[in-house]
Amino acid sequence: MIDTLEKLEKVKEGTIVTPKGFKAGGVHVGLRKTRKDVGVIMSDVPAVSAAVYTQSHFQAAPLKVTQDSLADGMIQAVIVNSAVANACTGEQGMKNAFQMRQWLAEYHGIPETAVAVSSTGVIGDQLPMDLVKKGCFGVTPTDDGGEDFASAILTTDKETKSSCYRMKIGEKVVTVAGASKGSGMIHPNMATMLGFITTDANIDPDAWNRLLKSTVDHSFNQITVDGETSTNDMVLAMANGMAENEMLDESHEDWHVFASAFSEVCCELAKKIAADGEGATKLVEVQVNQARSEEEAREVAKKIVGSSLVKTAIYGEDGNWGRIIGAMGHSKAEFEADQCIVSVGPYTVFEKGGGVDFSEEEVSDYLSQNEVRITVDLQAGTASGTAWGCDLTYDYVKINASYRT
Amino acid sequence: MIDTLEKLEKVKEGTIVTPKGFKAGGVHVGLRKTRKDVGVIMSDVPAVSAAVYTQSHFQAAPLKVTQDSLADGMIQAVIVNSAVANACTGEQGMKNAFQMRQWLAEYHGIPETAVAVSSTGVIGDQLPMDLVKKGCFGVTPTDDGGEDFASAILTTDKETKSSCYRMKIGEKVVTVAGASKGSGMIHPNMATMLGFITTDANIDPDAWNRLLKSTVDHSFNQITVDGETSTNDMVLAMANGMAENEMLDESHEDWHVFASAFSEVCCELAKKIAADGEGATKLVEVQVNQARSEEEAREVAKKIVGSSLVKTAIYGEDGNWGRIIGAMGHSKAEFEADQCIVSVGPYTVFEKGGGVDFSEEEVSDYLSQNEVRITVDLQAGTASGTAWGCDLTYDYVKINASYRT
Repeated sequence: MIDTLEKLEKVKEGTIVTPKGFKAGGVHVGLRKTRKDVGVIMSDVPAVSAAVYTQSHFQAAPLKVTQDSLADGMIQAVIVNSAVANACTGEQGMKNAFQMRQWLAEYHGIPETAVAVSSTGVIGDQLPMDLVKKGCFGVTPTDDGGEDFASAILTTDKETKSSCYRMKIGEKVVTVAGASKGSGMIHPNMATMLGFITTDANIDPDAWNRLLKSTVDHSFNQITVDGETSTNDMVLAMANGMAENEMLDESHEDWHVFASAFSEVCCELAKKIAADGEGATKLVEVQVNQARSEEEAREVAKKIVGSSLVKTAIYGEDGNWGRIIGAMGHSKAEFEADQCIVSVGPYTVFEKGGGVDFSEEEVSDYLSQNEVRITVDLQAGTASGTAWGCDLTYDYVKINASYRT
Repeated sequence: MIDTLEKLEKVKEGTIVTPKGFKAGGVHVGLRKTRKDVGVIMSDVPAVSAAVYTQSHFQAAPLKVTQDSLADGMIQAVIVNSAVANACTGEQGMKNAFQMRQWLAEYHGIPETAVAVSSTGVIGDQLPMDLVKKGCFGVTPTDDGGEDFASAILTTDKETKSSCYRMKIGEKVVTVAGASKGSGMIHPNMATMLGFITTDANIDPDAWNRLLKSTVDHSFNQITVDGETSTNDMVLAMANGMAENEMLDESHEDWHVFASAFSEVCCELAKKIAADGEGATKLVEVQVNQARSEEEAREVAKKIVGSSLVKTAIYGEDGNWGRIIGAMGHSKAEFEADQCIVSVGPYTVFEKGGGVDFSEEEVSDYLSQNEVRITVDLQAGTASGTAWGCDLTYDYVKINASYRT
């Protein structure tokens, strides 16, 4: 694994336009007050694409349109608007999402089904189509529009979120990059997570689908801000093949290098979403080791990082292991309570079924940092899993209790 | 059902000593600063008893001792202490729990296995046994000690929680009563729910066990304050038969009257716990109708009432149906999004897949009450289910972020 990671080069200023043949842009059309609100990604050529969607019963209209476009596994462009989610909007909402797709296709002279559509924002409102039209015909994707795109997809996120890695596949340089947004909710119902990944890799479509699904399981699916699943969550991954590498699939000798780069991009974006959670002051990482399976390790990690009591304790910089135990206690994983070892940062706080003597002050000091880590050894097997979240603060309540105006 | 409920008489001032042959008491021995901290329930004769316990992997020592006592389905007394949970306390904790049982049995001249033991409070600390001993030998159960007992089991609950109903079974008057506590957490880790039910009914032991389990499923198991399950949760039900009614089981013609009374007691106690949740300003009731099964109805109801976003919206008195939809969206129940009807109090806010025109002001006014109700019709079947919770407030964060001192 370390060998694999050494073959990756992190591209610090990289964005979704860093991979060859991708352009992007973002404009302000008036859906949001002053910030960019419509973004477009465009590939020079059709890209092998895969997506995963929210599991909500109330899947928003644009996700259905995107599924229609992705039926053949290829798209060339993505249009995203922020401020209005186009969710729970009935037939009119579906018509509007199809209309967005049609307008973007028309402007760029590509087939309608080459366009994916994505929206994020308030649930229940119809899109103001005059403004959306301005967006569809108003974004000119360029070689340096990655940051504009990353801005246009935000709602109340404080920062744009990009990640980019480069590697060699055979003799060819391949780049993977991504942009994402998390949940902000000054307007209510903006709980939406979107992720867009671009790569110039030449990759087998089925392998690309499998890689996306398995990577999302240990990255985006392992973050929680408040345990809510939105109507608009989507991660979309496009591979346009312009790096001209020998086609990648699981049997390729460099597969693990590419899969690691993809995983790094997804995990970085996921962590950025967790750190920028509503009202958050800290990124919390929970790593569970020695579980019977990766699924169980991830479940325990997510239980801990999602616990309101753990989150408030971390906000209070309190090394309160009883709450970690409490959260682990109602996981479905199998382990022996007496075998667990729980650490907060470098400090072991629980083992052999009871608390350990530790300095409350040192642990509190450790928890005063911006990034904190809890480690749990279940001593039940050999699998590991990680989850990311944030603390629960007054500001979370404040942001979400404010009346919509 | 209405006919059945009419046969019940609510005993307003009733406590766990109202059923014949039950005495109780509570004293202050110094586990808490000034409040009562050790309570005892005593039946004049051994009582057919049943209990349900926390599903946590980290089940506290007293629960294991109680299971030992209940192996033959009969107990005569219960001893409870607050302030220290005797959870995650290893072998010493087990010894201490057995010691409590032995002391109480010795003082009252009953067999050790006739005593159930229960603790609530901080996880990880050992019981100060000198104080506990004072409690075991210091409580004299009396005919009017119900309120003292109800006080002694509290941690940071604001109010004692009792409920009592009376009915006729054949020619005999039968009474069912209960006391409970919920979660308070000025000291951390006090997330504990305890319920004690007494009745003078003569009831078949197996029927009593079945009734407890099925009733807990739709009462205590349907409340959530913060989604946490404690190490010490327990509901214990004692029936001493002193009403001398013809033995009750499911085939008895008055079974439904008794089962209704038992259900009313459990639901009232559960609602009182929800209303007294940490930092809560409102009791929230969510009723889900027309589900495919009661399990699915309950699951959807619990998803809604447990959602941090719904809870903050209710705190903010905001009729924000998007969050209700969001919470329903990730339930496992099967239903069609377009078929759901969502109401806040008397106001329909969502139907046919989209929002309904309603007065934000009227809904906000409705939500300003101390008790609010959300109703959801899934139109997928005929089953119903209810869940109870509370709003999420600044005080919840404040209480739980404070450092332990």
